[in-house]
Amino acid sequence: MTGHAAADLTSGGARLPGDGVASPLSGKDLAASIRAEVAAMVAQGPAPKLAIVTATADEASAWYVRSLARAAGKVGITCEVVDLGPHADAATITATLVALGTDPGTHGVILQTPLPAGVSAREVALAIEPARDVDGANPVSLGRLATGLPAYAPATAEAVVALLDHHGIALAGKEVVVVGRSTVVGKPLAHLLLDRDATVTVCHSRTVNLPAVTRRADILVVAVGRAGLVTADHVAPGAVVIDVGTHPTADGGLVGDVDAGSVAAVAGALSPVPGGVGPVTTALLLRHTLDAARA
Amino acid sequence: MTGHAAADLTSGGARLPGDGVASPLSGKDLAASIRAEVAAMVAQGPAPKLAIVTATADEASAWYVRSLARAAGKVGITCEVVDLGPHADAATITATLVALGTDPGTHGVILQTPLPAGVSAREVALAIEPARDVDGANPVSLGRLATGLPAYAPATAEAVVALLDHHGIALAGKEVVVVGRSTVVGKPLAHLLLDRDATVTVCHSRTVNLPAVTRRADILVVAVGRAGLVTADHVAPGAVVIDVGTHPTADGGLVGDVDAGSVAAVAGALSPVPGGVGPVTTALLLRHTLDAARA
Repeated sequence: MTGHAAADLTSGGARLPGDGVASPLSGKDLAASIRAEVAAMVAQGPAPKLAIVTATADEASAWYVRSLARAAGKVGITCEVVDLGPHADAATITATLVALGTDPGTHGVILQTPLPAGVSAREVALAIEPARDVDGANPVSLGRLATGLPAYAPATAEAVVALLDHHGIALAGKEVVVVGRSTVVGKPLAHLLLDRDATVTVCHSRTVNLPAVTRRADILVVAVGRAGLVTADHVAPGAVVIDVGTHPTADGGLVGDVDAGSVAAVAGALSPVPGGVGPVTTALLLRHTLDAARA
Repeated sequence: MTGHAAADLTSGGARLPGDGVASPLSGKDLAASIRAEVAAMVAQGPAPKLAIVTATADEASAWYVRSLARAAGKVGITCEVVDLGPHADAATITATLVALGTDPGTHGVILQTPLPAGVSAREVALAIEPARDVDGANPVSLGRLATGLPAYAPATAEAVVALLDHHGIALAGKEVVVVGRSTVVGKPLAHLLLDRDATVTVCHSRTVNLPAVTRRADILVVAVGRAGLVTADHVAPGAVVIDVGTHPTADGGLVGDVDAGSVAAVAGALSPVPGGVGPVTTALLLRHTLDAARA
């Protein structure tokens, strides 16, 4: 499908003729190849260690942490979950992050959200050592990223760009519309896209006539955290759509921020949920941890 | 003119009927009121001190530093210019900034550009103490700004928003297009505008069909550093245009990035150069210095 989407965009974003079914922009192959690379590198030296600090009883969070730990184990990265419990205060979380920032056995540090009520994620994230901030959560990492200094980008934002690159979709000169202005995805992604010479628009809940803005996009990235918010009406024929959302369904499945059923009939290409941005994000966290260990 | 531009935007950005001459969005009154506020506050306590570190023989830079020092003096702020000469190396500049970050007599620190060839402004700016970084030059300040933590914004970016506020031009829900992706103006301004609920597009030299993108703007901010780049062709009738550029002319005058002659006939409102963003920027640097002294 790589040739399809890239050629389509290059020729001005016209709808793929005749099929009416968006090419699926899977992240599975890319994630597998990143994991394989990481595993090969890890095998050559001492095992990197990733510490994940949690302070929540949230089930979805626990599920994510288990899956990340499992993925780490498979590539030879040690993963330690430091569970501070759902009532941890900011001082405890900060002290834990500071200690992990100098612990000689630790290389990567992730602060898992949600945090207990009253604890500001951005305030405590300031305590993550930037050289170990493998999910780019410290505001200092975002500032370094925005100014072009070495820094770990939030893995989800980087995964969007990596997925587009993997599928041969050019970014330079393209109109990219990002729906969502979070510091975890929307804002850092805007910087990554600007660095790649895209023309970048950031939309959000206060945007007037969202469909009119998103229909301008050659490439539309949706990271709003609302299941099915983006429908066919939001998408120009032939556009590339990247779905960053993940929402568990009642039947144990997962859906995204994009209404895949309607959008697939209009878009030229669409990343699936699950199996799109998600696995690439996880793989990049592992690569960052390796990088932090070898730095 | 305040009512004019605001009403115009609210009604969808239609051209001001009948006149064909953009309202001038002067920054002089706003700058004067900020300076008066600062002077009144300064008079109540010990004099704040601003240190400006220079390392250049550039004439325009020297002119700017002199005018800033003069403006500081008028409101009772002491201004010390630390001239390291045009051949200073990164280590010297860094050491100077670090020393000023702890000097008990200093409150605000500005690193003036350009810097000597081979010295990276963003690298050395990391040495500016964030609590004294009154022109928001440290990447850490940008990261804090982007995540909503207390930080000094680059004064020029903040001046754009202050000028719009002063003239009663609403930002929430508006389409704002920023031309220029610098870390000094474009990028921090995008964050400030997103915080104000604008839909923000950032364009640059690689944007395809720039006039088509800029014509979408209810509010167009031009910060590219190229004299007269934006012409009437780039501007929707009735749009508000903010000109951040300053370029000396052969006859000793100053022009902006906007071709004011042609744009004034199309835009609903236009900030002049000189007398628009510039004086507000200077006044905000003084206010930041006061804030840093009183923090």
